Order: sequence, then C-alpha cells, then structure tokens
Amino acid sequence: MFANAMAAERAGEEERLERLAASLFHPTGVDGVYGRTGAYESVVEALTALITRHRPAGAEVFRFPPVMSRKHLERHGYLKSFPNLLGCVSCLCGSESEILGVVNRFEEGEPWTQSLEAADLVLAPAACYPVYPLVAARGPIPRGGQVFDVAAECFRREPSRDIDRFQTFRMREYVCIGSPEEIQAFRGAWIDRAQQLADDLGLPYRIDLASDPFFGRGGQILAISAIQQELKFELLIPVRSEERPTACMSFNYHREHFGHIWDLVTEDGTVAHTGCVAFGMDRLAVALFATHGTRTADWPAAVREILNL
Amino acid sequence: MFANAMAAERAGEEERLERLAASLFHPTGVDGVYGRTGAYESVVEALTALITRHRPAGAEVFRFPPVMSRKHLERHGYLKSFPNLLGCVSCLCGSESEILGVVNRFEEGEPWTQSLEAADLVLAPAACYPVYPLVAARGPIPRGGQVFDVAAECFRREPSRDIDRFQTFRMREYVCIGSPEEIQAFRGAWIDRAQQLADDLGLPYRIDLASDPFFGRGGQILAISAIQQELKFELLIPVRSEERPTACMSFNYHREHFGHIWDLVTEDGTVAHTGCVAFGMDRLAVALFATHGTRTADWPAAVREILNL
Repeated sequence: MFANAMAAERAGEEERLERLAASLFHPTGVDGVYGRTGAYESVVEALTALITRHRPAGAEVFRFPPVMSRKHLERHGYLKSFPNLLGCVSCLCGSESEILGVVNRFEEGEPWTQSLEAADLVLAPAACYPVYPLVAARGPIPRGGQVFDVAAECFRREPSRDIDRFQTFRMREYVCIGSPEEIQAFRGAWIDRAQQLADDLGLPYRIDLASDPFFGRGGQILAISAIQQELKFELLIPVRSEERPTACMSFNYHREHFGHIWDLVTEDGTVAHTGCVAFGMDRLAVALFATHGTRTADWPAAVREILNL
Repeated sequence: MFANAMAAERAGEEERLERLAASLFHPTGVDGVYGRTGAYESVVEALTALITRHRPAGAEVFRFPPVMSRKHLERHGYLKSFPNLLGCVSCLCGSESEILGVVNRFEEGEPWTQSLEAADLVLAPAACYPVYPLVAARGPIPRGGQVFDVAAECFRREPSRDIDRFQTFRMREYVCIGSPEEIQAFRGAWIDRAQQLADDLGLPYRIDLASDPFFGRGGQILAISAIQQELKFELLIPVRSEERPTACMSFNYHREHFGHIWDLVTEDGTVAHTGCVAFGMDRLAVALFATHGTRTADWPAAVREILNL
C-alpha cells in the first residue's frame, strides 16, 4: 500500500513536471536540449540582472563562449575527473577531395562520422575554467584577492528527460582568487547571501554539503575526500520533490588545485587558492516556475518586484 | 611604389585592428575563440535591445542553445553545402573500464582522441535551423505568414585571427515563413529598415548581392546560381577597409528549401517558402567599436542615445 502511494505520488510528480516542461521549452529531437520560450528567457534575463545587482565591488567581468581550448581543459584535469561528461568538438579536417568523399558516403546512406577528427576545442563544462590561465598570465594576485564575474553556456554529456538536468545550460559564477582565508570568507559570505536571495525569490531551500560526480570507482574516493574537506556546499530547491531536490547554486573551494596547475601566485609568492559561487541559471528559472506557476503574472508581488517582472 | 604604399596601409590596418581586439577580447589559446570584456558585452546587450525594439508585431520568440540535433542538420543539407565548417560533438561513450583505459592513455601522454565517438549533437551553425521542424510539427502556416524571433550562439570551423571572423559568435534572426510574395515583402522591408538602423548607429555601409561560401568546386556553381536568383543580400561595413568590408547583416530568401525538407505547408496546401534577416551581433558590436572608438563614452551622443549607453 505504501509502495503504491509512493508510486502514485511519483507519477503525479512526473506528470506535473512534464506539463511544466511543455510550457517552458520546445523539443529539438534530443533529450536535454531544448528551445526556450520568450517567457522563460525573460525570467532568465531577470535573474541575470538580479545577480548582477549583487556583483561584488571591483569584480572584473568576463563572458566566455560555449567552446574553450581542449589543451586547457586537459591541463585542468577534467579528463581524469569527468571523462564521461566531456563534449569535444570534432570536424572534417582533410583535403577537399577527402571531405567530398565523406559527403558522398553520407549521401549514399553510409556511416560517415568515423571521419571526424577532434579539433583543438571542447564544449565548456563550466564557466570559470578560462579565468585561471587568463589571470595567471597577468602576474601575482594583489593582496586582498581578486573577484571575477563570469558566465558561459555550458555542456555536460548527461542525456536525460529531467527538467533539472539539461545537456546545455547557462552558468554564472563569481570567482575569487587569493589566500585560503580570503576564499573561505568569500564563500561563507555567499552562502549567507544566497539564502537571502532564495528567500527574496520565495524559493524553499536547504543548504547541504555535496561533492562533484567524480567518475568511476576511483571517483568515489575523491568524492568522500571532498566531503570530508567540505569543498562544496549546494543550495538545494525541491523542484521535483523534497526527497530529490535540485542543486541550483553551489559554493566551491578548490583549494590550490587551479593555482597549482596555472602557477597562480599571490603577492607574497605562495600558490593562490581559488573558490567560486555558481548559479545554475536554468535550474533557478525552472525552480521559480515550478514554485510559483507557469504564468509570471500570477507570481507573488514581492517576487515580481525583485525581478522587475 | 604603389605596392609599397598598399603594403604599408595594410600593415597599419592590421595594427589598428590588433589594438582594437586587445581592448575588447581576451585570448583563450585558440584563434577565433575569445573571452569578452564587460564593456564589449554591454554593447552586445544594447544592440540586442535595439533589435528587439524593431521586432515585427506578432513574432514568436525562440532562444536556442549552442548545440542542436545532428540528424536535423544532416536533413537540412548542411553536410553537402558546408561540410568543412561543421563542428560535431564527440564523447567518450564506452563502459567505465573502456573510458578508464582512454584516461590512462591520456595520462601517459599517448593520443586518446581517436576514442571519441560522434554524439547525436552538432554545434549550431545558424540560429534558425531548429525553427523549421518545430513549426512544421504545428501544422499549416496561416494566411499572411508567420514571423519568428530567434537567437543562438553559433559555431563555424574557420580558425582565424581576423577580428570579423570568429569560430563562435552570436546570431539573431527574424525568420519569415509563408508564401513567396510574403517572404519577398518581408525581406524587402528589412533591407530598408536595416539601412535606417545602420544610419542611426552612425555606421558606414553598403548593400550588396552575395552568396554563401558553398564548399568545393561544385559549390561555385551553387554560388553563381544563388547570385543569379538574388537569394542573399548583405549589409557590408568597412571594419577593416573599404575594399574588404564585413557582412554584418544578411537578408536571405531560401525559396522552398526548408519548406520542402520539413513538409512546411501554407493553408492552401502549397509548400511554404522561408526567408530571414540575420544580425551578426558580434560583427555589429565590433563595427561600432571600429567606427566610433574603443571607449563608448566617446561615441557620438546620438549613437549612445539610441543604444541607451
């Protein structure tokens, strides 16, 4: 009986989420890749402006395209931690006659994709990766640390029909580079500020320790270590259910990982530490619609006011 | 002497463009893929808002991610026309032990990218491709035609250090679907309106017939045919020089190409024709900086006013 009730509740939840998805997104023939309606985009834009109003003083703005250097991502260590999520750009690189041969094979209905070759580009899996080499090239980080405002459309190879797990999604981040104490203070302040933001947006949430989905059995050891070191907290919103909430923001301490890889140093010559607060823009927008309904005109007045909707 | 003067002029032009690029973009280690400064993004956002103010009445808004269905792009005929420009998404798709084997090869400094397999996704080469199957699934196009407002970050595999040819760039389009007469009227009106927009922005320009860069020797025949049929006009701005101006907007008549492929029909049952006006958002922003200078505060008052800068 209890199992039946659970199954019925799960079915009702899925139906509610499917109706929500149908009102916000258009199918494109691939799971987790959707066209976005104007109403949905207006909310993403309003959230973007709200987060900009909370931009830390002095933060330098970088906006990155959806592709980045493959060599850089390899050096970041991404292939060891998340090889299954990687999207690499591949192209037809041969001579004119070689490419024509591939096109002819395609036109005759034969397989042709084996002729693709990996380019020097990958799809960016997070917004902040390009920051570290860029900043390292400028010399030591001044005393007090530096903050950067970055954004990119990101890609992770996780095909799914879940409304809270797209393959392609917008990520905004404030990134801090400095001493361990500066990063911890930055992150602590953002864990507080994020809760205020969620309150202002009328979103139910809880903060919890988390770890990244490191690949494979070896990855489980990394995940346990990350939790023990409290490297990642998440702001979780019950988009689908209380039991399986959605991580809509994360608060990350990378320790000296990126500093070490890119020779980022502080003014006193020690390896810089880094951290970031990351906003899942699409997950936040979906959480707003899931919480307040599909028509923004019906949202609570206070929420509409803070978003200038 | 004349050749020397030409060479000197070309060298001065390149130096000016390199200084401009350095003020607007950050290197990422790959030619044609750049981080964008906050000042540059402000201009892209202002242009976006300006174009939105000219949105045709009743246009439905779609925003698309930077990746799209590979099957759809194949059906569009992209592989035949522009196979050299294609960016396909490739992933490590095997079992955990197979992927670990690839990671181990990478870590030992061996080649590993031959293990990537083409996914069901490509990078979107234009903003409007996903519109046609989406709209076709809704049934016949009503009398009078329909207009759509679409945008996406696009990718074309053209590595270059030119400031007016990125591999990854923003494209905005108004797409019209209807009868041949409706498309021609839509396009004609936009060729006029675009010139007014360029005047308002203080940009020098000319309108010219053009063709897409169809691939290979066979492509030259397609290009000549496209010019004879006047399928494409461009608004050209002298970003680098008068002799080699940059196409910043285009006005395209696809005839029944997409209608035929996707079974798009009008209410009277005939194959729908399609056309679009496309705005190269990054090229327009670069053209503004190249024309008016790197500091928006120094731009002509009328230009700043129309952009709300």
